[in-house]
Amino acid sequence: MTDAHTITVPASGVEAFRVNAGQTFRITDPEGGQVGDLFAYAAGDLTEWLSASHTRAVVSRLFPKPGEQFFTTRRRPVLTLRHDGSPGRHDMLIAACDAARYADLGRPGHPSCAENLLTGLARCGIYSHTVPQPVNVFMDVQPGADGDLTWTPAATGPGDFVVFEAAIDCVVVLSACPQDIAPVNRGGPTPLVVTSRDTAIRRNAPVFDRAC
Amino acid sequence: MTDAHTITVPASGVEAFRVNAGQTFRITDPEGGQVGDLFAYAAGDLTEWLSASHTRAVVSRLFPKPGEQFFTTRRRPVLTLRHDGSPGRHDMLIAACDAARYADLGRPGHPSCAENLLTGLARCGIYSHTVPQPVNVFMDVQPGADGDLTWTPAATGPGDFVVFEAAIDCVVVLSACPQDIAPVNRGGPTPLVVTSRDTAIRRNAPVFDRAC
Repeated sequence: MTDAHTITVPASGVEAFRVNAGQTFRITDPEGGQVGDLFAYAAGDLTEWLSASHTRAVVSRLFPKPGEQFFTTRRRPVLTLRHDGSPGRHDMLIAACDAARYADLGRPGHPSCAENLLTGLARCGIYSHTVPQPVNVFMDVQPGADGDLTWTPAATGPGDFVVFEAAIDCVVVLSACPQDIAPVNRGGPTPLVVTSRDTAIRRNAPVFDRAC
Repeated sequence: MTDAHTITVPASGVEAFRVNAGQTFRITDPEGGQVGDLFAYAAGDLTEWLSASHTRAVVSRLFPKPGEQFFTTRRRPVLTLRHDGSPGRHDMLIAACDAARYADLGRPGHPSCAENLLTGLARCGIYSHTVPQPVNVFMDVQPGADGDLTWTPAATGPGDFVVFEAAIDCVVVLSACPQDIAPVNRGGPTPLVVTSRDTAIRRNAPVFDRAC
């Protein structure tokens, strides 16, 4: 299902879209148990992106609470976490899966969120060699008191969702994490759905398109 | 004091140096209470750097324990934490201080670890527009069970130190954090000292120098 207000990110795949300041978008996990790696770039300056380490520095939390914001490499708000209709487990500690990860797992060439990011950016006319640390929605990685991290498969049930609002015009890339070896997704990779009630979603909108 | 085996990083300043695989270096906080922002790049490919998010993914900890390693954006070991002669509080959650941070604090143009990094790299012939998340030695930021972060001024006493061993040939940049507004350093910015017993330290070694 893909219309002007809905984008389906296929299992293990990626979609990129433009959102303008004030626009909200919902990410739904229709089947449950699926992690999404979310990246966001300032539309006017693609060396400015959503940064996990800057976000932690500003909000003084491992992950923003609903109502709090994510910040860029220039410490500007880029997204607000407006509503959380999920068990509330999201990760901002772990790098995107990538070629090196799957080679280590004995599966060289396996699809990855890093590859997906660069694919999504390329569709918008952005050619990058940098993979920022993503916001891993629905991914459950919890630190213990000793600093050890415990990884648990995504706890989302069918239809769970999270809503973001753009604080600035930005390009968002969402990868439906293709991890099917380590226990990140529950029950194998499945799709994610992005919806926007208020404004049409400009899928693959070229970053150089002044009409955006 | 700067000889072939010692580099003093001046208060609020930076030094960059080459270390080869197997070489160890010690970072000492001579006066105590001083944070160092540490960056490391693979000597052969400067798009490969020590990555906090990849390190957490590999070691499944918020920060490596002594004997554990830091990993690059390509998931290769780059440094090993050989010995910790400090209270053992180090941070790998928080971005380097930067121009935006000091502007927010009402001090535009204040020296920053981000500026220091690019200065250090430039001395080695590397011109970059990306500031990776650093390893903040001696910086005390602890997450609580609810995900809130508690910031405490560096707990190091005079002479406390930490020892790293290079796993690959790399360029290391160490910024003596100039933060004198927020309570990160205790008692104002002071120097840090880098020493290497086994091999001379090649300060500002050009990355294009094949003799390294």
